[in-house]
Amino acid sequence: MQRIALIGAGFIGSVHAGNLAAHPDVDLVAVYDVDHARAAALAATHGTRAAGDLAEVFDADLVDAVYIASSTDTHAEHLRRAVDAGVAALCEKPIDLDLARAADVVAHARARSGRVMVDFNRRFDTDYLEVKRVVDSGEIGTVELITLTSRGPAMPPLSYIAVSGGQMRDQAVHFFDLARWIAGLDPTEVFAAGAALAEPRLAAYDDVDTSVATLRLPGGALVQIDSARRTGYGYDERLEVLGSEGMVQVRGHRTGAVSRHHAGRIVDDGLHPGWFERVRPTYAAALAHFVVTLERGGDPTPSLADGLKAQAIAEAAVRSLHSGRSEPVRYP
Amino acid sequence: MQRIALIGAGFIGSVHAGNLAAHPDVDLVAVYDVDHARAAALAATHGTRAAGDLAEVFDADLVDAVYIASSTDTHAEHLRRAVDAGVAALCEKPIDLDLARAADVVAHARARSGRVMVDFNRRFDTDYLEVKRVVDSGEIGTVELITLTSRGPAMPPLSYIAVSGGQMRDQAVHFFDLARWIAGLDPTEVFAAGAALAEPRLAAYDDVDTSVATLRLPGGALVQIDSARRTGYGYDERLEVLGSEGMVQVRGHRTGAVSRHHAGRIVDDGLHPGWFERVRPTYAAALAHFVVTLERGGDPTPSLADGLKAQAIAEAAVRSLHSGRSEPVRYP
Amino acid sequence: MQRIALIGAGFIGSVHAGNLAAHPDVDLVAVYDVDHARAAALAATHGTRAAGDLAEVFDADLVDAVYIASSTDTHAEHLRRAVDAGVAALCEKPIDLDLARAADVVAHARARSGRVMVDFNRRFDTDYLEVKRVVDSGEIGTVELITLTSRGPAMPPLSYIAVSGGQMRDQAVHFFDLARWIAGLDPTEVFAAGAALAEPRLAAYDDVDTSVATLRLPGGALVQIDSARRTGYGYDERLEVLGSEGMVQVRGHRTGAVSRHHAGRIVDDGLHPGWFERVRPTYAAALAHFVVTLERGGDPTPSLADGLKAQAIAEAAVRSLHSGRSEPVRYP
Amino acid sequence: MQRIALIGAGFIGSVHAGNLAAHPDVDLVAVYDVDHARAAALAATHGTRAAGDLAEVFDADLVDAVYIASSTDTHAEHLRRAVDAGVAALCEKPIDLDLARAADVVAHARARSGRVMVDFNRRFDTDYLEVKRVVDSGEIGTVELITLTSRGPAMPPLSYIAVSGGQMRDQAVHFFDLARWIAGLDPTEVFAAGAALAEPRLAAYDDVDTSVATLRLPGGALVQIDSARRTGYGYDERLEVLGSEGMVQVRGHRTGAVSRHHAGRIVDDGLHPGWFERVRPTYAAALAHFVVTLERGGDPTPSLADGLKAQAIAEAAVRSLHSGRSEPVRYP
Repeated sequence: MQRIALIGAGFIGSVHAGNLAAHPDVDLVAVYDVDHARAAALAATHGTRAAGDLAEVFDADLVDAVYIASSTDTHAEHLRRAVDAGVAALCEKPIDLDLARAADVVAHARARSGRVMVDFNRRFDTDYLEVKRVVDSGEIGTVELITLTSRGPAMPPLSYIAVSGGQMRDQAVHFFDLARWIAGLDPTEVFAAGAALAEPRLAAYDDVDTSVATLRLPGGALVQIDSARRTGYGYDERLEVLGSEGMVQVRGHRTGAVSRHHAGRIVDDGLHPGWFERVRPTYAAALAHFVVTLERGGDPTPSLADGLKAQAIAEAAVRSLHSGRSEPVRYP
Repeated sequence: MQRIALIGAGFIGSVHAGNLAAHPDVDLVAVYDVDHARAAALAATHGTRAAGDLAEVFDADLVDAVYIASSTDTHAEHLRRAVDAGVAALCEKPIDLDLARAADVVAHARARSGRVMVDFNRRFDTDYLEVKRVVDSGEIGTVELITLTSRGPAMPPLSYIAVSGGQMRDQAVHFFDLARWIAGLDPTEVFAAGAALAEPRLAAYDDVDTSVATLRLPGGALVQIDSARRTGYGYDERLEVLGSEGMVQVRGHRTGAVSRHHAGRIVDDGLHPGWFERVRPTYAAALAHFVVTLERGGDPTPSLADGLKAQAIAEAAVRSLHSGRSEPVRYP
Repeated sequence: MQRIALIGAGFIGSVHAGNLAAHPDVDLVAVYDVDHARAAALAATHGTRAAGDLAEVFDADLVDAVYIASSTDTHAEHLRRAVDAGVAALCEKPIDLDLARAADVVAHARARSGRVMVDFNRRFDTDYLEVKRVVDSGEIGTVELITLTSRGPAMPPLSYIAVSGGQMRDQAVHFFDLARWIAGLDPTEVFAAGAALAEPRLAAYDDVDTSVATLRLPGGALVQIDSARRTGYGYDERLEVLGSEGMVQVRGHRTGAVSRHHAGRIVDDGLHPGWFERVRPTYAAALAHFVVTLERGGDPTPSLADGLKAQAIAEAAVRSLHSGRSEPVRYP
Repeated sequence: MQRIALIGAGFIGSVHAGNLAAHPDVDLVAVYDVDHARAAALAATHGTRAAGDLAEVFDADLVDAVYIASSTDTHAEHLRRAVDAGVAALCEKPIDLDLARAADVVAHARARSGRVMVDFNRRFDTDYLEVKRVVDSGEIGTVELITLTSRGPAMPPLSYIAVSGGQMRDQAVHFFDLARWIAGLDPTEVFAAGAALAEPRLAAYDDVDTSVATLRLPGGALVQIDSARRTGYGYDERLEVLGSEGMVQVRGHRTGAVSRHHAGRIVDDGLHPGWFERVRPTYAAALAHFVVTLERGGDPTPSLADGLKAQAIAEAAVRSLHSGRSEPVRYP
């Protein structure tokens, strides 16, 4: 039985709490949140207790691992405390919006052999796992072009945008990671172009809501990612890998399998309303992987290094948005 | 909080136990099975206790409702005891393989105002609910033709076939109910034809594994159901309603959204491996409906009368298999 | 160069005229129609001449073959004249609405070794040819169930219905032939049920517009055909073959590949507006086959015997519509 | 009746010859080719004559228009002669691989009010016309992102590559034109990245076979085009427009509608084997438009200016391939 404490009782924290409570090998020992009432309510739902302070959470005598789902600006500190305490950690991305700070904590963890996993949950999607399997099996030959679509249904509130790090660091970063993972290669340069079309006020945040990014992989293969914050038609996430011997793709997920036929048209159920409905099962699968490594040993992946690399790509993309040229990725 | 006891700890009983345990308004008070060890094991999994005998299960002071998931030949007796004890019941189909016995217990329940629901779980599938909504809304006009496909992946063992009642009573009966429900009409006659193609030994059981049935509805509309026990390619369940103003259909459910493109062909993920994967969420939804009627009053549906009518259609279908002619449905 | 004369300058005759004129190995030598002006106009369009009377058309010195596309009640007579004259014939279905008369002319043709092909054009559809190839290759094992959907977009005029022979002989007969052809077996009995739902006045013609038919094949395999005269949503023709090792299907053909995504729904281009758009290329392909047999020898198929058998199935279906029981097919 | 002469009797010339011969309002008066025997053979097929020299082709007393389908390096000269002779012209793209030379002849044609159409035939595809209609209707709001996929099935021979102008000028240029046409806007800058992955010898031609291009439109909307010379799985052409109110897409065209279901997988007919099968009907539609403008007056489109603009975008893309930065488009 792995004793895991949860840090963060917001929306995504409550998702993790449910998965932790449902996992047969996990004992959800405590929930911590800066808002103690919120922690208490979530803890009560799952029959556990709220931690009075962080010291309880990082007590290696009581806790085997922490799930860090607090606000982004606290991740690095929590990671450092977990590493120092000898407690394993599963951490929401990003490590830290500041790449240098992120690199520091990653170096620290490496030096102390901390067991940390970054929650790039899409790697645990069954469709993406199948794509990875197909690519690794050689069925489609050498990877030549990866295309990814990442389009959210509706503009997040400006308050969220303000602390998100922007579309590259917040949204596209998941797909930078997916591309790296599927290709098994680290992109060397990135071009990005974007605009604030859905929400012109984004310009004040030096952010964009509609963008395309082109990554070059060692050997010349290319990656193309289009991202939008607001589609108006649902959550649209797709992936495609063109290889020298064929192509494999993941189509958009639909909410149902109903078709309505009327004069000359066929009306199908559309895409999921939001990202959460699309990726919901991946959180439990990511947790399951983490727990297995706790039980059996071995390093959980995606690792902190994976998290850092995806962020480094995002940084290059942000530079490119400003420079108008393909920017080299500088991995820390 | 509704106190519900479960009768039957086999495969489907264990599914129900999980749903009962997860329902926020349900207290799973006990699990009963003729095999006490099996009941104990399932009870332990969900933190409840095994009932020592049936008397505990039908004790209205301790139990508000029972979920009857025991072997088919015990349903009628358990239903009668529940009705007599003033305990509500959610019962797996069929009520009893013998239509006269089934009619008896239904009459008894009606006389005693028993609150009983029959678990035709497909009525709670989100796709079928949408079809029902479309039909009821008048979007496709008057129903003229309903077609249903029901094809299982693999031949069940002969030991199962022997007690199943045969393809009409065991498999097609779900679709007789769906057709009635969607059309809002009781079929008046049935023609059925079938053969033992996948498993010739079925002939010894006077059973078939591949069949088609044609139902006539009041007003002349038609229903067509094709059933197979073994597809070799997965579980294939589809539904289609042709109306005077359009058509609505539910396509087969696929296990994933991956397409592989190779020389001239596109290879997609196929259908679910079995019926359970396809309909899994409907059990929880059926339970949720049952619990709501316990809490708020009102009669749960599908009712015992619904269960009886579907069985009456199956009986007519069996007669037609032998007579080679369209047989009138004799509703008890 | 095959010298072919066309009999019949109506809609389908004009389609054949176009195909005859475009075929590189065919010389369209004349067009005949009881309406001479209509024949003259069609002949002029294709740079040929109108025949003054039928004697010209059946003159073996001038004509190698005739394409019989005149009204149904003249087919048998034209076939007989072609056979007597030693002129080959490609004849629209049916041979004659009266099965006995049809059998007579078929016997006559057989006795005289006439070279005659019946235009069951769907056998030349590239999708159906692929299904036939799959079935014959053994890829899906032994055929166990064939399902066919045949739904026209709009009710034909009553004037057409009056001379059509009814839904079984006019519409379903194409699919009786397809089923025979794909299975390579002659159905032994037929059950049919139908109603006049789209056009209640059909009852006065002893006809139906919505029907289902169940055919039994030697060995026990089943065929199921649903037919409708009016869908309201386009022309819907589908076919599916379930075998012991898999399934092969032909989906409905769509007019385009455009999808429109709006709030929660995906609107696709629908099915073809009518049967002609769906099967248009099959007429030229059927003609091409006929011409090849003229050039190289060999018997063209579908043969007159094929035509007669499909009609015999239709007759059994009509009997079943009245008797309410499965009727044996009586092949002449 | 429009008297049209064809210049060029190669593969695409023979396609045009067939369309010219089949058009009811066109008299194909002559075929010219530098290889006289080839011209004679094609002319004979369509019952017309081969022109002995170009003077016949540009004789306005005998010819109303020319269809220029000769080798690329002769387009500009033929266009100039047509303009000077007062003969209309429908010209294969590109106008000239040298943008300055192309601009010269376009200026000349403008000064002389020549009636010239450039054969960007994809604008006449029924699916793309529907997308254009949807976009222009406002159904999907303001255009924010256009994505295009252009992937050929197999590497063309190096001899073709050598004179093609490279992937941007030869292949992507069609999609630069489509994007301009659908958006109704002239891209202001282009980024392109590519590699020679399918055929490393392309590097010797300073060419790529796998590439992505990002175009920026006035107002900030983006266009993304991925191009590949060799897929191994067929010809894959797709288009998608994301607007502020929805999305419209054209899916890949498949060769048939057959699905084969085997253990856990569904195998569908794949994409067309080549570009020609995909776009074949567009050539006749483009010709029909040209003929209508000849008959009724009005300027045919795409115009020479359209052709020049698409080429200017391709030039910027080529510059970007070398510079690694987004390059401004310099329209002549």
